[in-house]
Amino acid sequence: MQISSSSSSVFLSAKPRPSPLGSPVRIKSLYANTNTPNTNTTSGSSSNSMAAASPKWSQKTITLSPQRRGCHLITPKILKEIGQDLSGFKCGLAHLFLQHTSASLTINENYDSDVRDDTETFLNKIVPEGMSAPWKHTLEGPDDMPAHIKSSLLGCTLTIPITNGQLNMGTWQGIWLCEHRDLATARKVVVTLNGI
Amino acid sequence: MQISSSSSSVFLSAKPRPSPLGSPVRIKSLYANTNTPNTNTTSGSSSNSMAAASPKWSQKTITLSPQRRGCHLITPKILKEIGQDLSGFKCGLAHLFLQHTSASLTINENYDSDVRDDTETFLNKIVPEGMSAPWKHTLEGPDDMPAHIKSSLLGCTLTIPITNGQLNMGTWQGIWLCEHRDLATARKVVVTLNGI
Amino acid sequence: MQISSSSSSVFLSAKPRPSPLGSPVRIKSLYANTNTPNTNTTSGSSSNSMAAASPKWSQKTITLSPQRRGCHLITPKILKEIGQDLSGFKCGLAHLFLQHTSASLTINENYDSDVRDDTETFLNKIVPEGMSAPWKHTLEGPDDMPAHIKSSLLGCTLTIPITNGQLNMGTWQGIWLCEHRDLATARKVVVTLNGI
Repeated sequence: MQISSSSSSVFLSAKPRPSPLGSPVRIKSLYANTNTPNTNTTSGSSSNSMAAASPKWSQKTITLSPQRRGCHLITPKILKEIGQDLSGFKCGLAHLFLQHTSASLTINENYDSDVRDDTETFLNKIVPEGMSAPWKHTLEGPDDMPAHIKSSLLGCTLTIPITNGQLNMGTWQGIWLCEHRDLATARKVVVTLNGI
Repeated sequence: MQISSSSSSVFLSAKPRPSPLGSPVRIKSLYANTNTPNTNTTSGSSSNSMAAASPKWSQKTITLSPQRRGCHLITPKILKEIGQDLSGFKCGLAHLFLQHTSASLTINENYDSDVRDDTETFLNKIVPEGMSAPWKHTLEGPDDMPAHIKSSLLGCTLTIPITNGQLNMGTWQGIWLCEHRDLATARKVVVTLNGI
Repeated sequence: MQISSSSSSVFLSAKPRPSPLGSPVRIKSLYANTNTPNTNTTSGSSSNSMAAASPKWSQKTITLSPQRRGCHLITPKILKEIGQDLSGFKCGLAHLFLQHTSASLTINENYDSDVRDDTETFLNKIVPEGMSAPWKHTLEGPDDMPAHIKSSLLGCTLTIPITNGQLNMGTWQGIWLCEHRDLATARKVVVTLNGI
């Protein structure tokens, strides 16, 4: 296996130097020393000067309205909520946490909705539901135990890199909310941003 | 799809202001500027004043005693180990990393133990074991290769938001250790806390 | 369930004290107060003195050459790329993010390559492919929709603790790139390091 990586690096000091002409559009490597004293004790998330090189945290709970059972592309909704906050981070991580056990978060293709339908088909195929299913936990309906299993298969948590104020996903990647219940309620996602 | 989010924000300066009367109990959005100089070079994790707004890291290796094959709720054990450290973080992330390839960590329902039993039933149903299984890797016993597969299906790592000194999970969410071996040994979890 | 954890703690002040004789080789618990003023505004990632206790971020995009369909151990390749950066962190987290929807990252056994082959066998067994598969999304080839499903089952993102300049994985753990396409292209992984 051959491996290659970009060799361009940007060393962030407290006050980022302007990029030289011809520098790559995308910052590939960042190193930050955040020890710089700063007498400004007011806070904010959008400064592009010294504050940009100091660690910041942002946390917000987003409520998604009830969705039909199946897989849903929610990148636009998430970006609408956190886009402005994201713009304050040169480098960091965005963490999404779904506070439920019968739905899930995953990253997959953002273009053809058939991919989302086929994924729902697959989940229903491997997790038995109804009379023939072997579940003991049936009090909350025939779709509840399958929903719990699907939630653990795909997971309820995602971490995505932030680069230059944006989620640094691949061209075809999107964030999916997978709703595994027939009669779903609203779903809460805790979004935590951390970076410089 | 409609979306809504809390509009309450708390901007943390170095010395957090007391909450006004009527403010929401739960902090929904935090922004921190941690550039404030501080001449106190002694460290600690429980201060609620200036230190509370500076980035902190805590890392600990927890050893869980051997468990029978199946899914186990370990939230109380984890909290017993890290609860005091957690209380020093207003906003952050807790990362759990299981250092093994034949067990897994997942988040799922914390109430009815039947959900854990049914999840074990499901895992055994989709991953073949024994004479009819197609595995090449059989030297470590018939349950070993299935255990590796289950470990990758559920994963060995979790990241959970920290809000106001607590793991910010949903009401019904708990941390599970899923033991996939018949004769398990003790399991180690590296817990890393990071936040302000 | 019995639980035990190490009781050794290291409190990092701005200038780490030399370890006393007989101290454990592995630091089990770290707490850092990074409020210390530092007039050095130049940055770097390898200092072991004051800079070692201040939060740092490093981000790099690694390109892996095309791999045959199946599971591949990539720990050596990843370490070759980030090993030097890692050495600058006493405590932190390494985040890997695969920017694709038809391959995946997982952590599993690093020794017997049969485990990787068997995992590929399992994935092909549970995700139907070819004429009998029920997929609507078929325009990109018979292996494309199965690849998307496998990507969500294993996931495209990993977070691994950093301890004393190294990835703190278990003895038998390794990082796998699972390639789910027959004719794969190069794959990009965004690696983000954060810590002190």
